[in-house]
Amino acid sequence: MVIIMRAGAAESSIQEVIRAIEYNGLSGKVMEGEFQTIIGVIGDREKMCCLNVESLEGVEKAVSISKSYKLVSREYHPQPTVIDIGGIKIGDGNLVAIAGPCAVESKEQIMQAADIVKSGGAQFLRGGAYKPRTSPYSFQGLEELGLKYLAEAGERTGLKIVSEVTEVENVNKVAEYVDVLQIGARNMQNFRLLKEVGRQNKPVLLKRGISATIDEWLNAAEYIMSEGNERIILCERGIRSYEEYTRNTLDLSAVAAVKHLSHLPIIVDPSHGTGKWRMVKPMAFAAVAAGADGLMMEMHPDPAKALSDGPQSLTPEHYRDIMDGVSRLAAFLQESGLAIRDIG
Amino acid sequence: MVIIMRAGAAESSIQEVIRAIEYNGLSGKVMEGEFQTIIGVIGDREKMCCLNVESLEGVEKAVSISKSYKLVSREYHPQPTVIDIGGIKIGDGNLVAIAGPCAVESKEQIMQAADIVKSGGAQFLRGGAYKPRTSPYSFQGLEELGLKYLAEAGERTGLKIVSEVTEVENVNKVAEYVDVLQIGARNMQNFRLLKEVGRQNKPVLLKRGISATIDEWLNAAEYIMSEGNERIILCERGIRSYEEYTRNTLDLSAVAAVKHLSHLPIIVDPSHGTGKWRMVKPMAFAAVAAGADGLMMEMHPDPAKALSDGPQSLTPEHYRDIMDGVSRLAAFLQESGLAIRDIG
Amino acid sequence: MVIIMRAGAAESSIQEVIRAIEYNGLSGKVMEGEFQTIIGVIGDREKMCCLNVESLEGVEKAVSISKSYKLVSREYHPQPTVIDIGGIKIGDGNLVAIAGPCAVESKEQIMQAADIVKSGGAQFLRGGAYKPRTSPYSFQGLEELGLKYLAEAGERTGLKIVSEVTEVENVNKVAEYVDVLQIGARNMQNFRLLKEVGRQNKPVLLKRGISATIDEWLNAAEYIMSEGNERIILCERGIRSYEEYTRNTLDLSAVAAVKHLSHLPIIVDPSHGTGKWRMVKPMAFAAVAAGADGLMMEMHPDPAKALSDGPQSLTPEHYRDIMDGVSRLAAFLQESGLAIRDIG
Amino acid sequence: MVIIMRAGAAESSIQEVIRAIEYNGLSGKVMEGEFQTIIGVIGDREKMCCLNVESLEGVEKAVSISKSYKLVSREYHPQPTVIDIGGIKIGDGNLVAIAGPCAVESKEQIMQAADIVKSGGAQFLRGGAYKPRTSPYSFQGLEELGLKYLAEAGERTGLKIVSEVTEVENVNKVAEYVDVLQIGARNMQNFRLLKEVGRQNKPVLLKRGISATIDEWLNAAEYIMSEGNERIILCERGIRSYEEYTRNTLDLSAVAAVKHLSHLPIIVDPSHGTGKWRMVKPMAFAAVAAGADGLMMEMHPDPAKALSDGPQSLTPEHYRDIMDGVSRLAAFLQESGLAIRDIG
Repeated sequence: MVIIMRAGAAESSIQEVIRAIEYNGLSGKVMEGEFQTIIGVIGDREKMCCLNVESLEGVEKAVSISKSYKLVSREYHPQPTVIDIGGIKIGDGNLVAIAGPCAVESKEQIMQAADIVKSGGAQFLRGGAYKPRTSPYSFQGLEELGLKYLAEAGERTGLKIVSEVTEVENVNKVAEYVDVLQIGARNMQNFRLLKEVGRQNKPVLLKRGISATIDEWLNAAEYIMSEGNERIILCERGIRSYEEYTRNTLDLSAVAAVKHLSHLPIIVDPSHGTGKWRMVKPMAFAAVAAGADGLMMEMHPDPAKALSDGPQSLTPEHYRDIMDGVSRLAAFLQESGLAIRDIG
Repeated sequence: MVIIMRAGAAESSIQEVIRAIEYNGLSGKVMEGEFQTIIGVIGDREKMCCLNVESLEGVEKAVSISKSYKLVSREYHPQPTVIDIGGIKIGDGNLVAIAGPCAVESKEQIMQAADIVKSGGAQFLRGGAYKPRTSPYSFQGLEELGLKYLAEAGERTGLKIVSEVTEVENVNKVAEYVDVLQIGARNMQNFRLLKEVGRQNKPVLLKRGISATIDEWLNAAEYIMSEGNERIILCERGIRSYEEYTRNTLDLSAVAAVKHLSHLPIIVDPSHGTGKWRMVKPMAFAAVAAGADGLMMEMHPDPAKALSDGPQSLTPEHYRDIMDGVSRLAAFLQESGLAIRDIG
Repeated sequence: MVIIMRAGAAESSIQEVIRAIEYNGLSGKVMEGEFQTIIGVIGDREKMCCLNVESLEGVEKAVSISKSYKLVSREYHPQPTVIDIGGIKIGDGNLVAIAGPCAVESKEQIMQAADIVKSGGAQFLRGGAYKPRTSPYSFQGLEELGLKYLAEAGERTGLKIVSEVTEVENVNKVAEYVDVLQIGARNMQNFRLLKEVGRQNKPVLLKRGISATIDEWLNAAEYIMSEGNERIILCERGIRSYEEYTRNTLDLSAVAAVKHLSHLPIIVDPSHGTGKWRMVKPMAFAAVAAGADGLMMEMHPDPAKALSDGPQSLTPEHYRDIMDGVSRLAAFLQESGLAIRDIG
Repeated sequence: MVIIMRAGAAESSIQEVIRAIEYNGLSGKVMEGEFQTIIGVIGDREKMCCLNVESLEGVEKAVSISKSYKLVSREYHPQPTVIDIGGIKIGDGNLVAIAGPCAVESKEQIMQAADIVKSGGAQFLRGGAYKPRTSPYSFQGLEELGLKYLAEAGERTGLKIVSEVTEVENVNKVAEYVDVLQIGARNMQNFRLLKEVGRQNKPVLLKRGISATIDEWLNAAEYIMSEGNERIILCERGIRSYEEYTRNTLDLSAVAAVKHLSHLPIIVDPSHGTGKWRMVKPMAFAAVAAGADGLMMEMHPDPAKALSDGPQSLTPEHYRDIMDGVSRLAAFLQESGLAIRDIG
């Protein structure tokens, strides 16, 4: 931490700041500049969390310079983490794909979807059984019944299942049926839920919060990992900006940022990330080229009849076309040595 | 809902859209414009949630025009709601104030804080017992012990107690000790938690999510009210913007927006809203002048030693000065007939 | 400036950074932390602008800690600046008001508007003669003819005139007719235009850019002042955020920020700041309570017929009602000693 | 345009709105919904600009549904525009690259840069002679001398020259020396400047404003095209968001949006778009895969000594590596039929 004093701050104010630093078991080094004095704070990162000097006389501001996360950082674990889910690896350089409808609507719908997902080449089937919806009057999901259909679809097709946990109470139930527990954007800072999935023996797909900084997102992953679960996949899914044309602004630079700051694998969801099915293909291609470890896409056997998120769902034809494209693109990148795995 | 067709969309595409509308139990009226055809959708609001036509051929976009919330809307309940909490009224035109430290740190600290809060004239004591923190290594709160201290402070001073619920499991416990259940910004779309507090017999203070639109916020209140709890106080606490000087951007226009769109009372938190204690006074004054029903402010007996959010905590002296100012300002506004209660 | 090295950066990398610092005529002090080394850079602020070390090996990031503006800063000029415009003072604690239509549409319209503005008690008449419009097909202003009408309206009523300059070529022409040169939000970083008005002998009203940080805004004012013109009035007019209910998000905390960081007066435009006439009154009240030195409001004799920005224009009745309210509020604040002039 | 009346609006209010519509030479169709009446407005797009009904009694809001630009829209010109600059084509499916330093600093620097740019395979050399800088104390460019150096570098290497025009007065001068006139982000809504370059016989590179919506950006292009200049290249360069890790948030979905809405070519600037040289490669790859027609990158012979924007400048080695990668990627996409040219 670096503390910047106001121009002309009194010597007594500086001494007061030093006392506060030392009171917290840290030490401070004073550096006098042309215009302002700055004080560097040295010592235990966790003690710095509790150092609040901005309300002291003469302090302009305090700037935190070290990261607040540790286990998920690249410094702590320099090699990329590879996650093995029943033989399918994420983070090893091969592209994985997760596809399926936003919500499980019926047995027929999810079985049909699973067959299409399988035929297109994705390894994972997604589908929401518990749906967090902005309005209480929107469709809220089939709950456990939806999980059963998912599991059945997984058994029939061999696809691994990804589904969202929305609250602590349903974590165990969801974990019974699925292969990967998804934390949705709205729950990225539901810390109790993060801790709960941190104690499960299932990989976690952690979506970025709708207005989360990369730092907050990695701290959310730190919550999970600090409980013991090291199998975390990050998922960029668009952030909220002023632009209204797209539903969210897909931040593909997050792929590069995560690969620089962390060892965890990262995938991209161009469906939620744009909110428009027309944009899924170009953004899926872009994500692969940027070095994403995988893709998550919404596909519905009949998008116009989807009970949620229709405008961003692909038709089966679009889905197969995109899968064909990204597979060939990923293969080319690997063979040509152009694949981006690491940003040093 | 209004559906806008692309320029030159075929008649068959228009018919297909009409079929989708009717399939959902709604009816559509076609209106041909100079450049584009638009289709107005008429019928049950809840059915419209499930109408997804954007992936149909020829559709440019669909614009939702009616609100998705009902019980919290002014149309449904034209008179302002007044909430009575043990004789203290919120929303009746008098200003209420909630003050106290971010977190309960010790019995001594909260007792000392309560005495100061009381002496300054606020009616409510706040203090976090369960703290949602970005980093797992930050101080997380005293939990039930903190609640006990709060309750004791309440008994001694007669102050009503406000404290945050962070998860479904602790709702009952918090409700035992406090007078008002607070939903924090990070949980504004924790729908399960909203439903849970919706079933409690305690008023709820619902903070605006850090990047929530006013529409999403009112929908979150709708979740609570649709479970039967009508005693909801909204709290504007700053939104995330690109500006880095302040921690958040306090959106005081939300006070006017809420008073136009809803019947619920709204208070303002200038401490979290700015992240800087120097700005609390001017923003508290502004909130009162804009018509806020109350204020929520962070005050710590010794801000430099606060275990969380120190930079935005007031000293006891600043707190008393602000309380004196807002009381006189509120009295003037009422007596002079300038107080803004309603935005028609 | 503070340079933060990556954890584990080599000693040779640190030496390389020091060499780059010294090469630029600055000096560096190394401070070794628990995890990371940081290097404080000391010396001439202007030389630091040219120091680019982030692409050097081992550098994580460089954080600028001193302000890049000087003349407009409070440190440079501790007392608030008071600007005298033909006897009307801005920044002396009295509230000033600027009102009028968005655009000058006809002689009749501006004369009628001027009479209403005068009768409501504002000291300044505003009206655009040169209009920057998003679409080339929107009404672009009456140009010089509009200026003539404004000047005539000023003569008749004694109101001072404020009008926008949109390009270097029309600065002299506008300056002939008006009392205050307005720089609009879109031109806040039109540096050539800033320099041009910096050489004029007329006060400048500098609107905040639609996504400008407070730092960038003060730097824009620095451009003007560094050319010699010290009579600058800042105007907060709403920033772009994700919220769609209001046209912009009025950032009233900017009033407090500017009063802390600078000596310049600041006024608030609640009309553009919200885009909704219903919100002008509550936000005008809030601005006054927050310590704004003045208000700028759109008023049109017949808003439904306005050629631009109708939705945010007040009717004459609303305007007079608001002026009555803010005058009484401002008088109360001054008499009671509650007026906020300074944020130390 | 669609006008939404408040629930329960009186019949007389509806009639009043109809009168206002007809007064403007347009016609209105009333559609009664379950909760609200909506009125569709039909007629000339330009007349709608002047229709302001939101301040009328009973009107909730007015929603504009047709685009305000025409010449740049895909409806107007369904085929992609290909721009020929001395034999180099932009928009024909081949990737072009523009590279060079942020600012021209000296003859030696720009000659050295040009040789490297050429050797890496880019077709265009960029370099700023007139620099818009946030602080008046930052380096502002070599002005005409810089243009001369650029032209000389162009002659020696055969590279086409791109340089920024910052004000109307220097358009002719810049046009004398360069092949493409660049409009920077800060000037995207400098409408007078847009019109001026619209009258030049040189192609224009129009950067997206830092907080411009896609709609505003296309309207800015419309300003240029409505003056007769049809050779416009759009350039996505990152938008302002709340994220602080990157300097801007590169919005690659803008590539897809522009290809859907317009016929103009679009290139991407990953250097400004991220502000970090480490991210240029992954984002350049992503842009190409998303279908961008070209790239613009900052490269400096010695980034640590750059007088501006050092942190985002590539070294010559990084530049050549990226050029090698994007060329191979673009070739693969074309040969395999995976290149995205059009989003229908």
